[in-house]
Amino acid sequence: MFGVRGLLRTLRRCSSAPCPKRAPAARLKVREALEARELPGADVKVQGWVRSVRSQKEVLFLHLNDGSSLESLQVVADPSLEYRDLTFGSAVEVQGKLLKSLHQKQNVELKAENIRVVGPCDALENGYVHIHTPVITSNDCEGGGELFQIKTANKVKEHEGESHFFKVPAFLTVSGQLHLEVMAGAFTQVFTFGPTFRAENSQSRRHLAEFYMVEAEVSFTESLQDIMQVIEDLFKTATSTVLSRCPHEVEFFYKYIAPAQKGRLERMLKNKFLTLSYTEAVEILKRAPQTFTFKPEWGQDLQTEHEKYLVTHCGEVPVFVIDYPYDLKPFYMRDNDDGPQHTVAAVDLLVPEVGELCGGSLREERLHFLQSRLQRLGLSDTYQWYLDLRKFGSVPHGGFGMGFERYLQCILGVSNIKDVMPFPRFPHSCLL
Amino acid sequence: MFGVRGLLRTLRRCSSAPCPKRAPAARLKVREALEARELPGADVKVQGWVRSVRSQKEVLFLHLNDGSSLESLQVVADPSLEYRDLTFGSAVEVQGKLLKSLHQKQNVELKAENIRVVGPCDALENGYVHIHTPVITSNDCEGGGELFQIKTANKVKEHEGESHFFKVPAFLTVSGQLHLEVMAGAFTQVFTFGPTFRAENSQSRRHLAEFYMVEAEVSFTESLQDIMQVIEDLFKTATSTVLSRCPHEVEFFYKYIAPAQKGRLERMLKNKFLTLSYTEAVEILKRAPQTFTFKPEWGQDLQTEHEKYLVTHCGEVPVFVIDYPYDLKPFYMRDNDDGPQHTVAAVDLLVPEVGELCGGSLREERLHFLQSRLQRLGLSDTYQWYLDLRKFGSVPHGGFGMGFERYLQCILGVSNIKDVMPFPRFPHSCLL
Repeated sequence: MFGVRGLLRTLRRCSSAPCPKRAPAARLKVREALEARELPGADVKVQGWVRSVRSQKEVLFLHLNDGSSLESLQVVADPSLEYRDLTFGSAVEVQGKLLKSLHQKQNVELKAENIRVVGPCDALENGYVHIHTPVITSNDCEGGGELFQIKTANKVKEHEGESHFFKVPAFLTVSGQLHLEVMAGAFTQVFTFGPTFRAENSQSRRHLAEFYMVEAEVSFTESLQDIMQVIEDLFKTATSTVLSRCPHEVEFFYKYIAPAQKGRLERMLKNKFLTLSYTEAVEILKRAPQTFTFKPEWGQDLQTEHEKYLVTHCGEVPVFVIDYPYDLKPFYMRDNDDGPQHTVAAVDLLVPEVGELCGGSLREERLHFLQSRLQRLGLSDTYQWYLDLRKFGSVPHGGFGMGFERYLQCILGVSNIKDVMPFPRFPHSCLL
Repeated sequence: MFGVRGLLRTLRRCSSAPCPKRAPAARLKVREALEARELPGADVKVQGWVRSVRSQKEVLFLHLNDGSSLESLQVVADPSLEYRDLTFGSAVEVQGKLLKSLHQKQNVELKAENIRVVGPCDALENGYVHIHTPVITSNDCEGGGELFQIKTANKVKEHEGESHFFKVPAFLTVSGQLHLEVMAGAFTQVFTFGPTFRAENSQSRRHLAEFYMVEAEVSFTESLQDIMQVIEDLFKTATSTVLSRCPHEVEFFYKYIAPAQKGRLERMLKNKFLTLSYTEAVEILKRAPQTFTFKPEWGQDLQTEHEKYLVTHCGEVPVFVIDYPYDLKPFYMRDNDDGPQHTVAAVDLLVPEVGELCGGSLREERLHFLQSRLQRLGLSDTYQWYLDLRKFGSVPHGGFGMGFERYLQCILGVSNIKDVMPFPRFPHSCLL
């Protein structure tokens, strides 16, 4: 092995300065640093990408990787060296001394004297305004009927002629989308993160009666690809942040719950998500060698078994399925104005094990299209306010929602959704 | 005025070095810096507390105050000088050059070359774990009856013999407290921030049917004063953060909505909150020269008019009222075991204009006390699980809740609670 001292000697010989007072730092690969046997206490420089940042009161730990080794190099630094740019994914140059580590699991660590962020990696979703959309609503957003209705528990009041506390029937929200659309008309980019509800009588491993969604809505967007890019960025950034901020908690799951999940997740993070049209997806399913309980057919909803097959078919990476049949999707999705197989600009993101994780679409911003669709559905009066949004300053826009508990299932490898939250609510169960 | 050059000359004369290559920086008060007419371009040093931090891509702005002037000194720095310790309230030493400001509103600004955080001010609620408590619950926490009950909107299912989706009656939560108590038994310090609901038929300027609460629960706490300290810290830290992060938005309210609010809020932040016992409060109200609609009487709830009088009486600063009558408060509050005026270790925080902003208590951790109280109320069966928490590893603990919309009213000076949120829900109104 070419030792560190050899490197330093070579460097000194190459130096044009006749007698440098301080030797320039030897540049080492992470692999070279990890394998160093002689630790001369001389300055070395390592360049790479930050794989984790753990900041404690007295000391700052970084893990650095440059692709030369599967292992990362532990960097130990004074917390004063932590800049706001020093985040997961940023490219850095660390100068310091290579010391014998006191940890059993590693041979050496780099005691940093200087850390320079070469390429920052700003993971914040800049410019999105956080909106608290209401839980109680008079909208029946999806028109699906799987709604919880609310009434006052105090029976007396209802018999006094007040049939409704709010004068109109009120429900628990199934999505904050329509409210977000209102706010996106003022703040351009908005998101919400809050509880949503479905009275679905399902005992499956991926359904809850009460669950959290992160939903975003973006104005001035004319392409579904823009929305898909936000979804992919959100998934990758959030996951990288979790991995870097909670390494112990994540390791716990990989050790005791889902040992195969680590590799699966790395594949998801490393690869670009794939895209299939709904029509292509149905073709793939029809050609599949296996028999499905629900026969795949253009115009029919994709079932869990179909979603899982598609993800496996694509190599266990997340897959966007776009352009769903017009008749399958709610009224607010943008008409692709195509035919004879009439579609809308909708997108679902399917992920390994879990299936559908996100759903989104461009929204129908054209008054005429929206008006005629609501008319056919007999909903023109109910959604007059929604039509008004298209009359005054309408913009092309779109958005999506991601189920938060399913997201946790996906990154942690937890097979039952009831295990990723403390007080799960599902049919016949509302403990505490 | 003693000019900057004079200061520098004096400093040089005092210096023991015969011919310093670089003059040491002159130490200036903020007032001296602000009044400087001669700007020698020499190094100066200013010490003080950070009143705001505004971080932009290309430049970092600080406002520094040391008590020598009502005005703060603007510091302009390269963003690379921003450490994580550089927060609102931290004590810093800034070295740099005093330059003529290009801004009309200020004469000079300090171009920082070095910023040293002398005393950090870590405003994070360290160690609190964020819990998402459920919205749907089978608890009737306060026993008040002002609850929303939920049912499935799909009538057919209910006639199929399924009288309840969850098998038991289910309600919208009025507080996450009981769930937090469960989690505080595992994580020690926990908080939740989410929607809560009251079916109160009130059209007041401070009630909503759906509102947000931040609630915290702290294990291993035996004194109500500890809880009050957390409340006061939370109020002051959150408010300081809002003022420092959103100066433009806050200024908007002070300019157009509530010009007097700025001074009122400064008084709240500067002064220690006061404490009165409920018994003292009732005495003060009885001695009041004004006539109340509700006659103050020991054993009766404090009304809004009483709360407002008490705050005014105390000089318009927030007031904690503690030790309320046993019979007025819910079963989980800790018995003070006193008499003949029997009280519990409860606390309400009253603030100017708004009245009650927070409510909290020590919780009854003694199995025997809790058991006999629940028995008298006929609730032993319902709260068996809660009694179990006292049987196995029970600890003295306490907590509180703060109404988020009332908090916004309080710091922004907005008189109607319906004006601090986009989609307010109140009797006869559930728009969108």
